[in-house]
Amino acid sequence: MLALTILGNNSAIPAFGRNPTSQILQTADDFFLIDCGEGTQLQMSRYKIRRSKISHIFISHLHGDHYFGLIGLLTSMSLLNRTQDLHLHGPALLKQILDVQLEAAASTLCYKLHFHPLGENGKIAETHKMEVHSFRVKHRIDCWGFLFGEKKNPRKLDIERAVAYEIPSSFYESLQKGMDYKTKKGTIIPNEEVTIAASLPKSYAYCADTIFDPELCNIVKGVSLLYHEATYLKDQEERAAARFHSTTYQAAEIARRSGVGKLLIGHFSSKYESLEPFLQEAKEIFPQTELALEGACFSI
Amino acid sequence: MLALTILGNNSAIPAFGRNPTSQILQTADDFFLIDCGEGTQLQMSRYKIRRSKISHIFISHLHGDHYFGLIGLLTSMSLLNRTQDLHLHGPALLKQILDVQLEAAASTLCYKLHFHPLGENGKIAETHKMEVHSFRVKHRIDCWGFLFGEKKNPRKLDIERAVAYEIPSSFYESLQKGMDYKTKKGTIIPNEEVTIAASLPKSYAYCADTIFDPELCNIVKGVSLLYHEATYLKDQEERAAARFHSTTYQAAEIARRSGVGKLLIGHFSSKYESLEPFLQEAKEIFPQTELALEGACFSI
Repeated sequence: MLALTILGNNSAIPAFGRNPTSQILQTADDFFLIDCGEGTQLQMSRYKIRRSKISHIFISHLHGDHYFGLIGLLTSMSLLNRTQDLHLHGPALLKQILDVQLEAAASTLCYKLHFHPLGENGKIAETHKMEVHSFRVKHRIDCWGFLFGEKKNPRKLDIERAVAYEIPSSFYESLQKGMDYKTKKGTIIPNEEVTIAASLPKSYAYCADTIFDPELCNIVKGVSLLYHEATYLKDQEERAAARFHSTTYQAAEIARRSGVGKLLIGHFSSKYESLEPFLQEAKEIFPQTELALEGACFSI
Repeated sequence: MLALTILGNNSAIPAFGRNPTSQILQTADDFFLIDCGEGTQLQMSRYKIRRSKISHIFISHLHGDHYFGLIGLLTSMSLLNRTQDLHLHGPALLKQILDVQLEAAASTLCYKLHFHPLGENGKIAETHKMEVHSFRVKHRIDCWGFLFGEKKNPRKLDIERAVAYEIPSSFYESLQKGMDYKTKKGTIIPNEEVTIAASLPKSYAYCADTIFDPELCNIVKGVSLLYHEATYLKDQEERAAARFHSTTYQAAEIARRSGVGKLLIGHFSSKYESLEPFLQEAKEIFPQTELALEGACFSI
């Protein structure tokens, strides 16, 4: 299972009660925190997300609305006597920013923080059931998106059929690994005959802050859920491009061309009070669109 | 006039809806921001404090619960196209912490930020009607308190009496400067006869985070309002000392010995849900005590 909870959806400045960007991806193993704007730990309290559940943090880039809440969260985890290791993936400079603040406070974290600087596109993290890849997106400063994918689940044993074929139980483990069974008479019983296909792996792509870039489609093609920023409404295409951001139409166009299951839009400019026009516009291009509203939880 | 608004009153970790330390001192000229924990700009929105009103920021020390909200506030001011200069007083290392974050974002502030590192005790800022002094307090890392005092107001002209004494209006300005009047016959009319005493200057002392330190009494003696931290209840004296913090009794004892007008206590430990016992205990020693509740405004 994968589920995404939105903690913040605004760009640049907190406005109209909206907080800067942050999301929690709940996986079968752990919680992943994606970006961490100011106040993220307060939003986590509001939506009952326990800090101790987080195993990995992914920071897309070093604009403040995506990471100013990180140092507060990391030090709170320490004050709460966290014991588990924590993996932090972010731009290389982030390490220096954290270190200078810890030094100034004459503090060290009481848990092990593994810092992994982002670089070229590729796999950056792996857990029992998940793989995470990073990919570069085009923004005013270095910026990365993240692709979270469930690993392919093994086929499940169909006990009834295995018994019917008189396969000894000592061979069940081999069946689950995908092997065929050969009877004493030499007949081959194909694996597919006695196992059931597992559910298809789910995936989530987080495109961070980006200018409209059709090359993204190659990376996010067919994901179950795509988050693409839509900082502006469609009439602000010029402003969006000048600031390396996207409009509703552009986000929806990426979703349409990529054939994703569902599109989530967020990172709304502080100049807009109502978000309803964002949804209306994006749906004109890609009907399976939803707003990344704070507190909303999307089952993937 | 002086008025103090509490934006945050908790120590270390946000808890029970309480935010980390921050206060706004409204003076006749400007707004002063005192400490700036994470989420301060959100608290300012909640309590209708306009960012643009702030002329000076004072950061007592570099524990995160006193300054993690600063970088977000400063960059928001820039995104909102602030034009006025801003004066920032804080520990020297704060400059480096801000610079590395601005550089990482390839950003500069659009307004002039004057950084003034804190050092020895003495006057650090002055406006038309106010003077601000810093003083060292004893904490685990370098830490400063701040003493905000109104300048002595000049006596006001008592027009009726000046007319009665037949003093020419051309001499009124000299009267306001404190001069006596000498009539043509050589009689001296003392200044006090034709002027009215102005209201006494008000003062506010902010003692930041500190261990119990009776030497503070020499500095905060007789202030109109004293803020002294009370992180713990009185039964935690040992823990308080070990962490360079104070208890309710200790805060109240400083107020009592210093003969202040009123005591405000705050910086409550995250382990306490109810704050009522803090008030009860402090009042046993110093009855004119109030809790620094968030959103409360104290007229000084």
